[in-house]
Amino acid sequence: MMSFEISLPPWAVEENQLLPKFIPDYEQRMRAVIRFAEINLDKKTGGPFAAGIFEKNSGEVVGIGVNRVVPANNSSAHAEIVAISLAQKKLSTFDLGGPGMPDYQIVVNGRPCAMCCGALPWSGIRSLVIGASGERIESLTGFDEGAVHPNWQQELESRGIEVIENVLTEEAEVVFQRFRDSNEPVYNGRSGDDLQ
Amino acid sequence: MMSFEISLPPWAVEENQLLPKFIPDYEQRMRAVIRFAEINLDKKTGGPFAAGIFEKNSGEVVGIGVNRVVPANNSSAHAEIVAISLAQKKLSTFDLGGPGMPDYQIVVNGRPCAMCCGALPWSGIRSLVIGASGERIESLTGFDEGAVHPNWQQELESRGIEVIENVLTEEAEVVFQRFRDSNEPVYNGRSGDDLQ
Repeated sequence: MMSFEISLPPWAVEENQLLPKFIPDYEQRMRAVIRFAEINLDKKTGGPFAAGIFEKNSGEVVGIGVNRVVPANNSSAHAEIVAISLAQKKLSTFDLGGPGMPDYQIVVNGRPCAMCCGALPWSGIRSLVIGASGERIESLTGFDEGAVHPNWQQELESRGIEVIENVLTEEAEVVFQRFRDSNEPVYNGRSGDDLQ
Repeated sequence: MMSFEISLPPWAVEENQLLPKFIPDYEQRMRAVIRFAEINLDKKTGGPFAAGIFEKNSGEVVGIGVNRVVPANNSSAHAEIVAISLAQKKLSTFDLGGPGMPDYQIVVNGRPCAMCCGALPWSGIRSLVIGASGERIESLTGFDEGAVHPNWQQELESRGIEVIENVLTEEAEVVFQRFRDSNEPVYNGRSGDDLQ
């Protein structure tokens, strides 16, 4: 009882194995990430979010993770946390920005929430590529993305993380529109509360 | 390779088993949490941080978790994330604030960082009890707590989470002073960067 484990669903393990070793183009990286988010929604294996970790310059694929909150009974199992954790395990380090490491990039289909924005500086990630904006996620889906810092881009940049927004935004938003039209849960905490 | 696991160290599993079933008093809850942080530092099983989850009104103990970043090679394995994840596993829910649940409280020896502040609303936690301030953690230890929202207390309160600060502050700060005087790593990301 004093440990917990978070796993990718079987389809995502297979899809990771089928990815090319390198995806040089940022839009192609985003397209792969959006596809994982879409399948995660279709297969009902988590929320409509995915995150991929890539070696920024070469495009070498480290892995793509997906949101696992509901199936894993874990409110912190957002795609970014899952992808960063799997990458850190694969590379045997808690700091992807450690000595001798290349620059690693995280590619996400939607702007990271307050938790995941906060997770990035700790992770050693050096580059963030975003599809849909936080405002669009909230208006399309009903998720409350939390108290993201008003100057989150500058706060990340000042910690050595470049921020690249609006990559394949329309394709990214389609998944959130499909989520809105599904009956999948909007799993903000406190569902027993009248704040909901 | 497509899953990751985070465990408490053996001493913390034992110490959890030795806790009373109920700790009614908030200061006593904080004292237990500070003790876990202190042991975590002494045994070198993670950073100087612990977090306990309690049923707020009765004081029933759900469990106390500790920081596992360095031993687990996982930059998200902060005490709060570990404690919330273990509690959600134990109670078989991703939402500690779900229908029919009592109010759950998290007690931390230091103000949660940006990531962990962001994790609280998703978790369903209804009450946050803090020992040392974020400013004191940063000045004593050198950790960069990230881009915490300037009005983080109000942002949490507006999401139904009460915030209680300055509980056993001096006792909490002693652990951070001891951390400063140790040679344990300050594991901000990007240790390969001259930002560090």
